[in-house]
Amino acid sequence: MKYSSKGLIFSLFISLIFTFDSYAQQQRPNIIVFLVDDMGWQDTSVPFWTETTPLNKRYHTPNMERLAKEGMKFTNAYATPVCTPSRISMLTGMNAAHHKVTNWTSPQNNVSSDNDDEQFLPAKWNYSGLSPKADVPNTIYATPFPQLLKDAGYFTIHVGKAHWASIGTVGASPYNLGFMVNIGGHAAGHPQSYLAQDFYGNKPGKNTLQSVPDLEEYYGTETFLTEALTLEALKTLEAPIRNKQPFYLNMAHYAIHSPIQADERFYQKYIDAGLPPVEAKYASLIEGMDKSLGDIMDYLKAEKAEQNTVIIFMSDNGGLSLVPPRAGIAHTQNLPLKAGKGSVNEGGIREPMIVKWPGVVKPSAVASQYVIIEDFFPTILEMAGLKSYKTQQETDGRSFVPVLKNAGFKDDQRALYWHTPNKWVPQDGPGINYKSAIRQGDWKLIYNMRDGSTELYNLKDDIGEQKNQTDAHPEKVRALATKLGIQLKAWDAPMPLVKQSGKAVAMPGQAGN
Amino acid sequence: MKYSSKGLIFSLFISLIFTFDSYAQQQRPNIIVFLVDDMGWQDTSVPFWTETTPLNKRYHTPNMERLAKEGMKFTNAYATPVCTPSRISMLTGMNAAHHKVTNWTSPQNNVSSDNDDEQFLPAKWNYSGLSPKADVPNTIYATPFPQLLKDAGYFTIHVGKAHWASIGTVGASPYNLGFMVNIGGHAAGHPQSYLAQDFYGNKPGKNTLQSVPDLEEYYGTETFLTEALTLEALKTLEAPIRNKQPFYLNMAHYAIHSPIQADERFYQKYIDAGLPPVEAKYASLIEGMDKSLGDIMDYLKAEKAEQNTVIIFMSDNGGLSLVPPRAGIAHTQNLPLKAGKGSVNEGGIREPMIVKWPGVVKPSAVASQYVIIEDFFPTILEMAGLKSYKTQQETDGRSFVPVLKNAGFKDDQRALYWHTPNKWVPQDGPGINYKSAIRQGDWKLIYNMRDGSTELYNLKDDIGEQKNQTDAHPEKVRALATKLGIQLKAWDAPMPLVKQSGKAVAMPGQAGN
Repeated sequence: MKYSSKGLIFSLFISLIFTFDSYAQQQRPNIIVFLVDDMGWQDTSVPFWTETTPLNKRYHTPNMERLAKEGMKFTNAYATPVCTPSRISMLTGMNAAHHKVTNWTSPQNNVSSDNDDEQFLPAKWNYSGLSPKADVPNTIYATPFPQLLKDAGYFTIHVGKAHWASIGTVGASPYNLGFMVNIGGHAAGHPQSYLAQDFYGNKPGKNTLQSVPDLEEYYGTETFLTEALTLEALKTLEAPIRNKQPFYLNMAHYAIHSPIQADERFYQKYIDAGLPPVEAKYASLIEGMDKSLGDIMDYLKAEKAEQNTVIIFMSDNGGLSLVPPRAGIAHTQNLPLKAGKGSVNEGGIREPMIVKWPGVVKPSAVASQYVIIEDFFPTILEMAGLKSYKTQQETDGRSFVPVLKNAGFKDDQRALYWHTPNKWVPQDGPGINYKSAIRQGDWKLIYNMRDGSTELYNLKDDIGEQKNQTDAHPEKVRALATKLGIQLKAWDAPMPLVKQSGKAVAMPGQAGN
Repeated sequence: MKYSSKGLIFSLFISLIFTFDSYAQQQRPNIIVFLVDDMGWQDTSVPFWTETTPLNKRYHTPNMERLAKEGMKFTNAYATPVCTPSRISMLTGMNAAHHKVTNWTSPQNNVSSDNDDEQFLPAKWNYSGLSPKADVPNTIYATPFPQLLKDAGYFTIHVGKAHWASIGTVGASPYNLGFMVNIGGHAAGHPQSYLAQDFYGNKPGKNTLQSVPDLEEYYGTETFLTEALTLEALKTLEAPIRNKQPFYLNMAHYAIHSPIQADERFYQKYIDAGLPPVEAKYASLIEGMDKSLGDIMDYLKAEKAEQNTVIIFMSDNGGLSLVPPRAGIAHTQNLPLKAGKGSVNEGGIREPMIVKWPGVVKPSAVASQYVIIEDFFPTILEMAGLKSYKTQQETDGRSFVPVLKNAGFKDDQRALYWHTPNKWVPQDGPGINYKSAIRQGDWKLIYNMRDGSTELYNLKDDIGEQKNQTDAHPEKVRALATKLGIQLKAWDAPMPLVKQSGKAVAMPGQAGN
């Protein structure tokens, strides 16, 4: 719109349009996705299960409690078993089996992070990650939602872990994924160090691809990475709030991913509580992250932006349950859930999710409708008022705005899918390596690519996936396996190749299974 | 302004105000400072002297020629002898003797870059650089103009070399200096490498404090640093242009600072022209930088932002004249000017400056009025329409908008000042180490701190500073030395200490000189 050299009447007319347009624009909410890395469903004092667990008592997350009080807790929220697939599903609205980035991307270009296997040759997955441009080898070419928000006038900010694509590819830079600001995000999936004393991994001669960029002002101070990223994020909000430009902030903490280092601000109290050092460090990473959430909430309040800002709290996969580095018995770190990061069992995929949306979501609401990480794409665009937009990809996610508006919303016909045709770690574990899964209603089926076997669980009574009902409900197994197979086929999901035959592993529900 | 739940009439009234306000806002020009590092006055095919020199014939800068055709060439534009002082003078509007960052800042905190000297102990200068916050040791606490632009609604972007302060201090981050976006800028003053094949210095285990951040998408490609920064800069302009938000872009190339590496896109032609390899590399760095300027001009034209965008081309100090790394005879690389980077002689401080301001500056204009780098501060704020603003510092620069509006503008009473109470390199050279200088009209006086001696030149007839007129014009020497001394005293300019006496070197024009 231009106003130059027009008469007053025309100007008045235009100004009316402009005013209402401005009004509409100003009403568009700010949106913050507060994405934690590797945080388990129970790594919080907020109880997400029907009862308060020992883990809920162990961890202190007062700001998550505050957020849950002001918003809606999702007790059945899902991501994928590892980080890059979740992050790409979120940005593209595609299921991981569809975008084919089914494992974490190596920061190095054209290097698959898959481990070698005796039985299988690797599946053809997109191991270089997400690309906003065509014809980049081993990437999914798709339109990320921050680009759509940016095009619609949002001020789009990424702070923290990116990990959407490998170095040497266009997706390595958040600036190519629709973000107007990037602080600290690049091709790596974890920090070399959380410590400013270590220059976050940038000490001369000591760098790796995990050295965190952009934070030189803190070098040599005692500023923990989580705190530094928070301070940086708050700085970026100043201008859009003052300019009344709606913003999208992707606040993507490196915490609580390994290396499990002590956040000294909180470490001692967990030692005093009797935790072994590594678990005290883990707990300190959680509480440091929680403080960041509180600082952001406080800032919004102080800046009078609280009432017009959506906050979506989420984790990208389950809590790490490998021992070491964790203490205790492997795969018990997310109890009552089975296993952890890397697994299609609940411990690997169920997430602590909370959404605050003043004026829309009722305080202290609890939703049991299952949702999944690719749902963020249409939800966020709907929140921002984008009704029609063009994307390179066909999206799979569904907006959960109806759930936000009605905590009782129920759809138990929808099916959710997980797909890991990869060898994430050298040793298989519960739900770990070469597994697919489907959930519909309370039923969940896991498909094991190694031998075509299945596990069937009813999550309503058996959230811990302890009672395999495959033999008791063959018709349910058949139905879910067929549905899973049809969907994976429709997405042309990558499958590993059997070394002996050179052929792809059969999809679930196919003849032979 | 808020528009919610108001009646139509009030809304109309408000909308009128808002419209005119918007109109005014949209008229505010975009401003680009295209700042080259270490580029000499003659490192271009644009003749800045009264005649075309052999150096003008050597270098190819077609886009600078184009810019000069569309704007105003300043034949008497000055910076300081080295980079950080210039960059801080530009951002703060203060003379270097006043802000006391009189030498380049080490990327390491609390480390002076001064060399040891037999005669002198170091002056107390602000060797940690610029700080936007109080009480940071060894820094100048000042308000940078990008902060004022940001506060006034500009979208402020920094791309490339920052070098305003040391690691571990708040000024190390452009995000603290009023920039809303920073790509590639940090505490270092040069790149470890211009080559994407070297990851711009970020190869694992090979990093230094000069490793360039933020450019992982180019790693392993053939994208020269100059090109990568240009591509990044253009991306940042997309949103503000579409949103009609005025922007300030600080396009601060690392080129043409050492390491003198070949920009392969242009290298061979200079070899073919018979230049020795190092000089062919140097020329290729220049032409690569010039291509960047052209790409930005092309982009603005394509985006229809050309007519509302000011471009200010500038260098931060004179061309390097040390041999090695340069070829030939030392201190002849900026002929007809004497010496080069580090010197208060013209070769160290006179810069190729061009300003394009459509609708204000006449095409192919030439201004001979002398201006200096601290003048950028008030000039840019005036261009942006900022009439009153608060700064922490008292500023010294003068707006050159009157010159832009009238190429014939003349003020030969104003005095310009340079002050280097530092030992920049281990060996003194012409105008290098422990020198101050003043220019008023055509007269220039250089004060040598080592022995209190002076050199007097008349630049009108003696641009090469070959004919010392100290003996011929004692009254001019006395007047200029006094003026210089009074000003340095008023600024409390740092002076080196004489080892023997422990006392500060006398200011020029004082008893004893």
